Amino acid sequence: MTKIKVGILGATGAVGQRFVQLLADHPWFEIAALGASDRSAGMAYRERRWVLQPDMPAAVRDMRLVLGEPQSFAGCQVIFSATPNDVAERVEAEFAAAGYYVFTNAGPHRMDADVPLMITDVNPEHAALLPIQQAQRGWSGFIVANANCTATHLTSALKPLHDAFGLEKVFVVSMQAVSGAGYPGVSTMDISDNVIPYIGNEEPKLEEEPLKMLGRFDGQGVVFADFAVSAHCNRVATLDGHLECVSVALRTKATPEEAAEALRSYRSLPQALGLPSAPDPCIVVRDEPDRPQVRLDRMTGAGMTTVVGRIRRDPILDLKFVLLGHNTVRGAAGGSVLNAELLSKQGYIR
Amino acid sequence: MTKIKVGILGATGAVGQRFVQLLADHPWFEIAALGASDRSAGMAYRERRWVLQPDMPAAVRDMRLVLGEPQSFAGCQVIFSATPNDVAERVEAEFAAAGYYVFTNAGPHRMDADVPLMITDVNPEHAALLPIQQAQRGWSGFIVANANCTATHLTSALKPLHDAFGLEKVFVVSMQAVSGAGYPGVSTMDISDNVIPYIGNEEPKLEEEPLKMLGRFDGQGVVFADFAVSAHCNRVATLDGHLECVSVALRTKATPEEAAEALRSYRSLPQALGLPSAPDPCIVVRDEPDRPQVRLDRMTGAGMTTVVGRIRRDPILDLKFVLLGHNTVRGAAGGSVLNAELLSKQGYIR
Amino acid sequence: MTKIKVGILGATGAVGQRFVQLLADHPWFEIAALGASDRSAGMAYRERRWVLQPDMPAAVRDMRLVLGEPQSFAGCQVIFSATPNDVAERVEAEFAAAGYYVFTNAGPHRMDADVPLMITDVNPEHAALLPIQQAQRGWSGFIVANANCTATHLTSALKPLHDAFGLEKVFVVSMQAVSGAGYPGVSTMDISDNVIPYIGNEEPKLEEEPLKMLGRFDGQGVVFADFAVSAHCNRVATLDGHLECVSVALRTKATPEEAAEALRSYRSLPQALGLPSAPDPCIVVRDEPDRPQVRLDRMTGAGMTTVVGRIRRDPILDLKFVLLGHNTVRGAAGGSVLNAELLSKQGYIR
Amino acid sequence: MTKIKVGILGATGAVGQRFVQLLADHPWFEIAALGASDRSAGMAYRERRWVLQPDMPAAVRDMRLVLGEPQSFAGCQVIFSATPNDVAERVEAEFAAAGYYVFTNAGPHRMDADVPLMITDVNPEHAALLPIQQAQRGWSGFIVANANCTATHLTSALKPLHDAFGLEKVFVVSMQAVSGAGYPGVSTMDISDNVIPYIGNEEPKLEEEPLKMLGRFDGQGVVFADFAVSAHCNRVATLDGHLECVSVALRTKATPEEAAEALRSYRSLPQALGLPSAPDPCIVVRDEPDRPQVRLDRMTGAGMTTVVGRIRRDPILDLKFVLLGHNTVRGAAGGSVLNAELLSKQGYIR
Repeated sequence: MTKIKVGILGATGAVGQRFVQLLADHPWFEIAALGASDRSAGMAYRERRWVLQPDMPAAVRDMRLVLGEPQSFAGCQVIFSATPNDVAERVEAEFAAAGYYVFTNAGPHRMDADVPLMITDVNPEHAALLPIQQAQRGWSGFIVANANCTATHLTSALKPLHDAFGLEKVFVVSMQAVSGAGYPGVSTMDISDNVIPYIGNEEPKLEEEPLKMLGRFDGQGVVFADFAVSAHCNRVATLDGHLECVSVALRTKATPEEAAEALRSYRSLPQALGLPSAPDPCIVVRDEPDRPQVRLDRMTGAGMTTVVGRIRRDPILDLKFVLLGHNTVRGAAGGSVLNAELLSKQGYIR
Repeated sequence: MTKIKVGILGATGAVGQRFVQLLADHPWFEIAALGASDRSAGMAYRERRWVLQPDMPAAVRDMRLVLGEPQSFAGCQVIFSATPNDVAERVEAEFAAAGYYVFTNAGPHRMDADVPLMITDVNPEHAALLPIQQAQRGWSGFIVANANCTATHLTSALKPLHDAFGLEKVFVVSMQAVSGAGYPGVSTMDISDNVIPYIGNEEPKLEEEPLKMLGRFDGQGVVFADFAVSAHCNRVATLDGHLECVSVALRTKATPEEAAEALRSYRSLPQALGLPSAPDPCIVVRDEPDRPQVRLDRMTGAGMTTVVGRIRRDPILDLKFVLLGHNTVRGAAGGSVLNAELLSKQGYIR
Repeated sequence: MTKIKVGILGATGAVGQRFVQLLADHPWFEIAALGASDRSAGMAYRERRWVLQPDMPAAVRDMRLVLGEPQSFAGCQVIFSATPNDVAERVEAEFAAAGYYVFTNAGPHRMDADVPLMITDVNPEHAALLPIQQAQRGWSGFIVANANCTATHLTSALKPLHDAFGLEKVFVVSMQAVSGAGYPGVSTMDISDNVIPYIGNEEPKLEEEPLKMLGRFDGQGVVFADFAVSAHCNRVATLDGHLECVSVALRTKATPEEAAEALRSYRSLPQALGLPSAPDPCIVVRDEPDRPQVRLDRMTGAGMTTVVGRIRRDPILDLKFVLLGHNTVRGAAGGSVLNAELLSKQGYIR
Repeated sequence: MTKIKVGILGATGAVGQRFVQLLADHPWFEIAALGASDRSAGMAYRERRWVLQPDMPAAVRDMRLVLGEPQSFAGCQVIFSATPNDVAERVEAEFAAAGYYVFTNAGPHRMDADVPLMITDVNPEHAALLPIQQAQRGWSGFIVANANCTATHLTSALKPLHDAFGLEKVFVVSMQAVSGAGYPGVSTMDISDNVIPYIGNEEPKLEEEPLKMLGRFDGQGVVFADFAVSAHCNRVATLDGHLECVSVALRTKATPEEAAEALRSYRSLPQALGLPSAPDPCIVVRDEPDRPQVRLDRMTGAGMTTVVGRIRRDPILDLKFVLLGHNTVRGAAGGSVLNAELLSKQGYIR
């Protein structure tokens, strides 16, 4: 089988490096181009600082960085975008117009009405927006977005509960790792022995994105889910992995045991299709009183799984629980890779 | 003026050391006895590991540790107790029966109907329980408890809101420092690069203690406040200072500005009486979008102040905000010292 | 092939758990018994706190802990000992006398004249002490010790230099991870935002053990190597991995390039024999100016490799460099497992 | 007494902020101008992020930042420079030429033959270079440099030993705090759970600067001290405070007790003159086996003291010990402030 050639926009940043790491030995995709800013274009990839473990994959060390514009990516079909938000809107549209299938981790297009904001295990049916997007915009390519890292794992855990019991209210307080701020990101002088109870523009994403992803495609667009989310976001001194404390009110009452069973028994399309990056199961429920923990559990399912624990009654709403997910694997690059696997399997990538 | 002689139970633990630090140069109180377990009794205080900065006060270095029983504390009027919970119930009762005025940081007596659970800036009027306690139990001494560290700062911030608008629902997620677990407490192997979303027996305290402290003394006892609290408690890798994300529903609607004004203008008895350890103001409201922060703000008011910030509308309840307080100063030893100052000023200590 | 049945003494501690982890799926060895103190004996292994990632191997979860005495280990041939030092001397001798082959990470027997203190890649020939040990002590079993974690990696890096150029003086300053102190070990209150420039009884080990391991077996015993070591040991806030800054004076002068070549080209017996846990190579030399780094490089060779970098001229002695190794893998349990693999291959285990 | 008006170059950086903090309430000096780069000039000081505790002094909050050029500092006599190294050489010379007395923390002029590299407690007599500097360069002002942060504390501890016993060889390994890299400086992703065994261009400073400072002014210039230094520099995850492990060879042998006595009894000019920022004593020797520790001891003498401990015999050289000092107080801004106090007292500032 010939692999699909892919390019990575923003390949030198923290999320771009995760794309490289996840794609370096991928069974279906082959990295053919690495994009960077003017400042880095022309350099070998190994000349830029690699911030992940283990070391940079040998196959990409000598690749030359190219400018992040469509003509530099000739030969690629699929583009994974970790482009900075301030240029992503324009750049990604140019690539889609030029016929590339763009899978983006950037924010600007996420809430566009005709762009699927997609978690393969939650709303694969939103891919039906793509023909509408292409028709409306006159694009031969398309843009598919993955969600904010914190919203991804929250929505993944909410999905089975929403299906089974109907969500009415969701309170969420996040404790987010520094890698969510990119590299170099958070100064040690800011976060050591500290918690910063603020992440710019993060709470609105947590309060909006789940409603789109848990919404219903009605043939023309997505009808947003009808529940309210209240979010508090905090930065803590962890390297990877976002932890979230959640309380929910349900439309149909459920016991903690029923909620656990709904989460445990949840099965979705990626597992059925055997997608290479699909974790199985996509949700793990832990029974210990003090799990999930960030360092212990973030690599569950190679970082692609959402881990839930401490499901118990809430004195005000109905249930409360804790969830954890890896922010730069499933919550960023890995989510987009899995989106591309799904759409490839479903014939959207031709 | 002759100083009041005080003894400290559990003087070698982390909270016990805070008592020593706060009392070593106190204008009204003088440390006359330091209690410890069988294992340490007889040793000089300096032979035990001191975990605070700066170094151990010179005045106590050569004091001999005594057994934690009433006869060892002859000459003391006031007892500050940092006794471990498993023996506190019995030991503190013995001291009160023997005529000592016991100010305790331990948990067992906090919810006793006739024991004031007291924050000087919140419910000084609950001291009226003391004659009832003495009459019912036949004690010449008494027991006054300070609250759980996390509950102390939560209640301090809720008090002006409850007075002004009436609380209906309170949702709180804490991020608590390791010093809250005592010394040696939390292993580095457990908390480094991690968050532990569980602290044994902590959430019930947060859900109950504020209701007692914000309750009304009706002449015979405390009628608990009528609102619900839902708590999630987390241990994070900070040394001192508990941060809490709070959402509240109010009986009378209020804007963030009105809430801020209620908090800012709040004045209470300790400031009016000029108690030596009273912070002034007892609540500080910060306007910056990213404050309070644990390391930057925990020593506000020498660790005796509760700091509030990010007051904003909540999409589900009415308001959300962040609060921070020092857990072993105001949240433990300092709270009890201030309780003793108040009762001394009011003539309860004779 | 029938696997050799092995037992683990001190199986519930941090190093004991590493033994379990490394042996749970070992091609030659099979865990048949797990020893613990009186307090834990009789419990299922899963009832004790597991401090490693990933989760406890399924195969041992339901094994019952037995008392750490020879009769409890009937059926085992090999004993891996992570027994606390205060009982290791007596207990390990009892096991060896009872015919068990004991591979110990504990300290007491390390400097015994007839006990091999062995790193497979450094001094496998010291196994020749075993018949002498058995004859002198009348044991049918034997004791083989691995070295102190910090000494292990220091000695591994010094070996090729000693062979090629002859060591005369060695200065070493260590920065050691908290896992070296066991679990719970180092309190967060002690090490957060701190370095502790002292580790009890550690510097003498670093100054003595390398001399034994780099000594020569003369047919009757080990003639210690003739150079001096000066050690400063520090505890830093890392989880795993000991970093060491080293300066050396050589008997035959060498350039940094010659030293790097000596380290890079070093080959030893475990690789030649294809031992299952042997890293290949056993020493990795990094060229970057800022490597090895603790978090980035400690898992090199699955934690069994010693990583060296920054080899440069020293203004006082001859050369200076940095080395890093995993303290609980190669520096403890992994070192002993590799010792057992070697002696098994060489027929010492019958 | 009228205060001397001072300006601060590079006032928005981490060291610049320390200057502001130390000078905001100084008895002799008054902040009259705050310099910054083009990007910030014109802004109020409060608009720039303050990274120290406690909060920014009220007196400077509304001061307007000015460009870092002589005409902007009219009215000032003394300039404290925390200018970045890449422009410091030129800018500081312009200020000195324009008649300002420049006290710099920057590196470029430190090793100039006619610039005093000065620690008030070590080599105040090097101020005699100033008339030579002014004559040679035709300046009415002058430049006095303080040393590298790590070299400052090393040299402070070596001075009494060099006076008493004569130094022959010095081996030093540093463990340096992140604040030494400025703000934002070290990324959390780089240093969390890590040690970086490399700090660019740091080791040469440690190997050279002490020789100048411990050199002898011979009437025309400084004759460097005649001993060798070998340095290894490491970045560790501490906020403030550099720890150094040191081994020394002495020309006259000394016991650990004699060395401790030499350090303890050392007295210098700033204490005799009663300079406002002079710590008394300037060196503290701790007797505990595990001190100094970074977090516990860095604020000794308000961060102006060098703390020494663990003085013991060295198996290769003569003695080994540990020293600690605050890097941005005594090791940077505080050192320059004390230099200015001394020269002011001695009439150099007219």
